[in-house]
Amino acid sequence: MSSTDDVRGVALRAREASHVLATATRATKDAALEAMAAALGEHEDAILAANAEDVGRAEAAGTPANIIDRLRLTHERLEGMAQGLREVAGLHDPVGEVVRGSVLANGLELRQVRVPFGVVGMIYEARPNVTADAAGICLKSGNAVLLRGSSSARSSNAAIVTALRGAAESAGLPADVVQLVPGDSHDSVKALMRARGLVDVLIPRGGAGLIQSVVEESTVPVIETGVGNCHVYVDAAADLDKALAIVLNAKTQRTSVCNAAESLLVHEDVADEFLPRVIDALRAEGVTIHGDTGFAEYDGVVEATDEDYATEYLSLDISAAVVDDVEGAIDHIRRYSSGHSDAIVSEDQATIRRFVAAVDSAAVLVNASTRFTDGGEFGFGAEIGISTQKLHARGPMGLPEMTSTKYVVVGDGHTR
Amino acid sequence: MSSTDDVRGVALRAREASHVLATATRATKDAALEAMAAALGEHEDAILAANAEDVGRAEAAGTPANIIDRLRLTHERLEGMAQGLREVAGLHDPVGEVVRGSVLANGLELRQVRVPFGVVGMIYEARPNVTADAAGICLKSGNAVLLRGSSSARSSNAAIVTALRGAAESAGLPADVVQLVPGDSHDSVKALMRARGLVDVLIPRGGAGLIQSVVEESTVPVIETGVGNCHVYVDAAADLDKALAIVLNAKTQRTSVCNAAESLLVHEDVADEFLPRVIDALRAEGVTIHGDTGFAEYDGVVEATDEDYATEYLSLDISAAVVDDVEGAIDHIRRYSSGHSDAIVSEDQATIRRFVAAVDSAAVLVNASTRFTDGGEFGFGAEIGISTQKLHARGPMGLPEMTSTKYVVVGDGHTR
Repeated sequence: MSSTDDVRGVALRAREASHVLATATRATKDAALEAMAAALGEHEDAILAANAEDVGRAEAAGTPANIIDRLRLTHERLEGMAQGLREVAGLHDPVGEVVRGSVLANGLELRQVRVPFGVVGMIYEARPNVTADAAGICLKSGNAVLLRGSSSARSSNAAIVTALRGAAESAGLPADVVQLVPGDSHDSVKALMRARGLVDVLIPRGGAGLIQSVVEESTVPVIETGVGNCHVYVDAAADLDKALAIVLNAKTQRTSVCNAAESLLVHEDVADEFLPRVIDALRAEGVTIHGDTGFAEYDGVVEATDEDYATEYLSLDISAAVVDDVEGAIDHIRRYSSGHSDAIVSEDQATIRRFVAAVDSAAVLVNASTRFTDGGEFGFGAEIGISTQKLHARGPMGLPEMTSTKYVVVGDGHTR
Repeated sequence: MSSTDDVRGVALRAREASHVLATATRATKDAALEAMAAALGEHEDAILAANAEDVGRAEAAGTPANIIDRLRLTHERLEGMAQGLREVAGLHDPVGEVVRGSVLANGLELRQVRVPFGVVGMIYEARPNVTADAAGICLKSGNAVLLRGSSSARSSNAAIVTALRGAAESAGLPADVVQLVPGDSHDSVKALMRARGLVDVLIPRGGAGLIQSVVEESTVPVIETGVGNCHVYVDAAADLDKALAIVLNAKTQRTSVCNAAESLLVHEDVADEFLPRVIDALRAEGVTIHGDTGFAEYDGVVEATDEDYATEYLSLDISAAVVDDVEGAIDHIRRYSSGHSDAIVSEDQATIRRFVAAVDSAAVLVNASTRFTDGGEFGFGAEIGISTQKLHARGPMGLPEMTSTKYVVVGDGHTR
């Protein structure tokens, strides 16, 4: 049987299961989430043994240590996954929420209500914890999920999904609300991307290459997540102490994440004062600065290429440029930003208003670190990813973003 | 120069213009809409002359009369287009609307605000009035628009766009907020569908074939509109007078529209009573009934094939079947519905609740005709189309559905 047949098979089962899940009560869904959390504990030995296989294979293949670290599960990490499922159980159920409603002039009652998408496909890379996180968020939002993790984590993912499926069933839901996509090859990913009509939404989570290929090849609607070439613009009217703290935090607090700053723009009027301070502070943290001519005169600054400004480093590197004014910053950001998170540091109201209006990114931050663009920080309780596209959801995606809506129109024999 | 270069050229100009339009005030946009309405009157001679060329070409090519009727413009139709633009000017501006907002525990102020998509591409068939309608809705929602109408209406569309561009400019907006996509060949459509990064959203309006090809080929995100294989289910607990009125209205009030009923399902308990009445009434209106074995015994009923149940007739035809109960109706609708509008006629609350919960369509109607699924009927004031997809917008799309959102996060030196 081909990958396409295999994938269509699981997708059809997911669709059947989704019909049951879509009308399940919150009580049933929360019971399933609690059972899933407990099951991760009960299956701990099996999951850790499966994970040891994956780690062993990765080590034998000479995988870098940081990737192996992301792949490795421990008792503590399993507890964290279980805790995440319990937290999702505690969140408000988005399904059934009335988004708007009115009575029309002819007496028809109109309500727009949240409903699940139906079947969600997740394509993601190394971390096996995403398997439980995604399953929990999808279940709570009433969606059956098809999980296609990295082949390097296949044993771990299989063991986790076995635990989760049993738990769903014990709570009275079909096991097929959570399924792994069969097959390790790209063919199975391709079949998933072509399962239009069976799969309602695809969410790729991972590097830029993965996301680009899904966007290009998928006929299933895609929610694009996560590439962040984020900027901090330090204005002439900035409080330079705040600016220094924000630049350092945005660049160095955690470098491997999509909301870390990758580019620094400084107004020329404060360049002489701010550049020596920020360059010293960044270098003290081990950051390499890729600067334009405005930065070139300072020690240790590497000359920036056009490519540097377009790069999401995810490392202790930052591109940097001096700009004429806020319009120069806006132009630079329009040209290079990935539309994730861009920040201004300024105390001038007119300049802030202009920056906020003109910069079209998922998050525009004023006197705050780009690191705040995050479902947890925003108080969403759970996050399936950060959308950098404009359709459907933009920015951190919580449970409501995992739903569609439908109109319910109630009359009493109404005709036109 | 290739089509791709041409289309990239107009898309780049649209993007530049969109930056100005995105931050234009409502007053400026409304002034532009009023000027556009006036310009249609001022350019009436030129537009009607251009339209006569299109109609002449279509007649020479032996185009059917109903298509020519859709293509033809008159003084009255131009007045209607102008009136539509004035009505859009009167609608609430969605841009800048705060969708939600809060102050986080750390004092950060969080606001999610509506922003334009940026550049919208419209691909549509014969009617030249769509040119003005789409331009008006896009302008009010802050989006630059690239219009790719049918080649059969190319002279009319060019004359209308000339009028609209001049009007936009007279109101202080760049003319390039409204542009025609150059080229008549499929290559230019293809280039538009591949302009990811330059075009933010594509909205195809037209027949199923057009929409299918856009969905399959586009790398630009698509909002799918309009195919409606709509059902009316007459339950055992239906008021049969209401049922008869609703079926007749849904099928015959206007047959060529996406919210017309295409399929009738009747509970077996009321079949003996309802079928003779509904068959007589439908036949009296000239409707051909494609029925299953339950309908076969009645005069003039044609035997239905599986394909009939999947067909959006858009004509005086209806498929029909007798079902065991509401679950049978739900199963049938899940299998065949295009997810546009499906109705139940029943006085039984439990049955209605089950139908509304289980039928996953853009609109689920209770004791009301499917013909009510419409932006005008819903009170939206303007409609760019009816989305039958689950991502971003579902059902009639008004001005808010033509926007994305962004998060504005305001702090005072906040770091993590």
